[in-house]
Amino acid sequence: MQLPTYDDVIAAAARIEGHAHRTPVLQSATADARWGAQFFFKCENFQRMGAFKFRGAFNALSKFDAAQRKAGAIAFSSGNHAQAVALSARMLGMPAVIVMPQDAPAAKLAATRGYGAEVVLYDRFTEDREALTKGLAAERGMTLIPPYDHPDVIAGQGTAAKELLEETGPLDRLYICLGGGGLTSGSALSARALAPQCKVYGVEPEAGNDGLQSLRAGHIVRIATPKTIADGAQTQYLGEYTFGIIRRDVDDIFTVSDAQLVEAMRFFAERMKMVVEPTGCLAFAAACAALEGGAGKGERVGVIVSGGNVDLARYAELLA
Amino acid sequence: MQLPTYDDVIAAAARIEGHAHRTPVLQSATADARWGAQFFFKCENFQRMGAFKFRGAFNALSKFDAAQRKAGAIAFSSGNHAQAVALSARMLGMPAVIVMPQDAPAAKLAATRGYGAEVVLYDRFTEDREALTKGLAAERGMTLIPPYDHPDVIAGQGTAAKELLEETGPLDRLYICLGGGGLTSGSALSARALAPQCKVYGVEPEAGNDGLQSLRAGHIVRIATPKTIADGAQTQYLGEYTFGIIRRDVDDIFTVSDAQLVEAMRFFAERMKMVVEPTGCLAFAAACAALEGGAGKGERVGVIVSGGNVDLARYAELLA
Repeated sequence: MQLPTYDDVIAAAARIEGHAHRTPVLQSATADARWGAQFFFKCENFQRMGAFKFRGAFNALSKFDAAQRKAGAIAFSSGNHAQAVALSARMLGMPAVIVMPQDAPAAKLAATRGYGAEVVLYDRFTEDREALTKGLAAERGMTLIPPYDHPDVIAGQGTAAKELLEETGPLDRLYICLGGGGLTSGSALSARALAPQCKVYGVEPEAGNDGLQSLRAGHIVRIATPKTIADGAQTQYLGEYTFGIIRRDVDDIFTVSDAQLVEAMRFFAERMKMVVEPTGCLAFAAACAALEGGAGKGERVGVIVSGGNVDLARYAELLA
Repeated sequence: MQLPTYDDVIAAAARIEGHAHRTPVLQSATADARWGAQFFFKCENFQRMGAFKFRGAFNALSKFDAAQRKAGAIAFSSGNHAQAVALSARMLGMPAVIVMPQDAPAAKLAATRGYGAEVVLYDRFTEDREALTKGLAAERGMTLIPPYDHPDVIAGQGTAAKELLEETGPLDRLYICLGGGGLTSGSALSARALAPQCKVYGVEPEAGNDGLQSLRAGHIVRIATPKTIADGAQTQYLGEYTFGIIRRDVDDIFTVSDAQLVEAMRFFAERMKMVVEPTGCLAFAAACAALEGGAGKGERVGVIVSGGNVDLARYAELLA
């Protein structure tokens, strides 16, 4: 297995240029004063379809050959990856099938269909979505794009940290949310190349610390689906590619509670005027906790805000 | 009375550089597809203290001479101007007094004090805030900075549209929220200089259309304090300076209902992941209404998102 490299991130950056947004890097004097550091927020909640996932999906689909483009892309996801593949396929003029659970929120089904994808529903309790998807892929000749464990997906996700570091120059620390590891491993490739001294940290929800367990054990540890409001990080295990990079390039993994996520979400809304989904609050919550414990004081701290896709009614509940 | 000019905007831009944020210009493929235009959103909700008001206040206070700096600045405001003057004074190392109503929201009092200003409270029902403020100003030798009707305030507010047009190039239309007219008149100065063909529109809440009435009448019309959720546009009349520029440089004034503001606010949250206060939704709501009526189809439309300072509990209520 050959791990992707920073050269792959550079190639991905060229492919997504003009298609993905170059998202802004925001600062907050209030955050700096309150926690005693200099924060740089890379705002992927302002990315197309509301999350960094567009980068990896668009990069992967861009590399399809003529036959693959004709047959199209297939993915299983109930989250941001579904919309990322659907939108990328539409932009590249190819068909897309997204396999989603029957009980997925109506808004997510509508959004995915809104991007022009065919949605195939399955029963979470009686059907195996992976087998179903692979069967469909074989039958229709479509290329399966997994949500994180794929070199092109990882290289695409790495472009966000590349843009961040090109804009800010070297940072002392970089915090990244960690689910399956696509964003964390891609970001680590960019950080190692552009800011070798920068400490790179993955951040998981307390309830689902499989990444931390894996890092400590030296092999991929699997857990039951964790209960957390960070729905984008409810993964049960890292991928082979993502773990290979994370064990080599990531300095440590932290966890934060749902209460800390809500606090960070409220800070983003109240002081930075940004809507951030719970998963997107992981990195900032961990950075604040570290600083409250004295780690990172006076340093230049990068935070990747991964996405903003949260149901409005749910969001209003969390803010109130 | 000599009206400020675009040269004053250029001078203001040099004064605020490195102190104000150069806020991002965001785009939304979803908005473009839904309304059939190409939108450019100048995001002043990401400005320091959460609103464009910082630009004008900082510009005005920067021009103080040594004696004025020593005595400091005084303002009356229960809104964003209070915080803008307080923060600017602190950054420039001078004292500030803000005269605020006794029943102002605790959060606003705290925020203003948090920026280091002395808050003087008055009773809205028995005291005249203007007389009180003028008395205090005379007594302490402080310079009074009004919220909009001042050449330096107008010139400062004009820097937002200057940045927008420098980044986007010529636009076909520019929509700006209209309260006392500081942002509208400043923006009009920049638009006339940088994009002479661009139509410039002020937007008021339906309940408080004194600007529209004034434009039609050819003189400043005064109204009772309007009832609207757009608290930043609850002004009763335009200023002498702002009306002088508006009647010359603004093409027309539109009004929108509170229901339209809430709809725009929800779109900003759901699709653009931004927290925008009701007043900050005026410009976009009017642009959408115009497009729904067929005006501006296919055009390049600038929208100034003026601020994001809304009480979280209230915001959650409006979203839910």
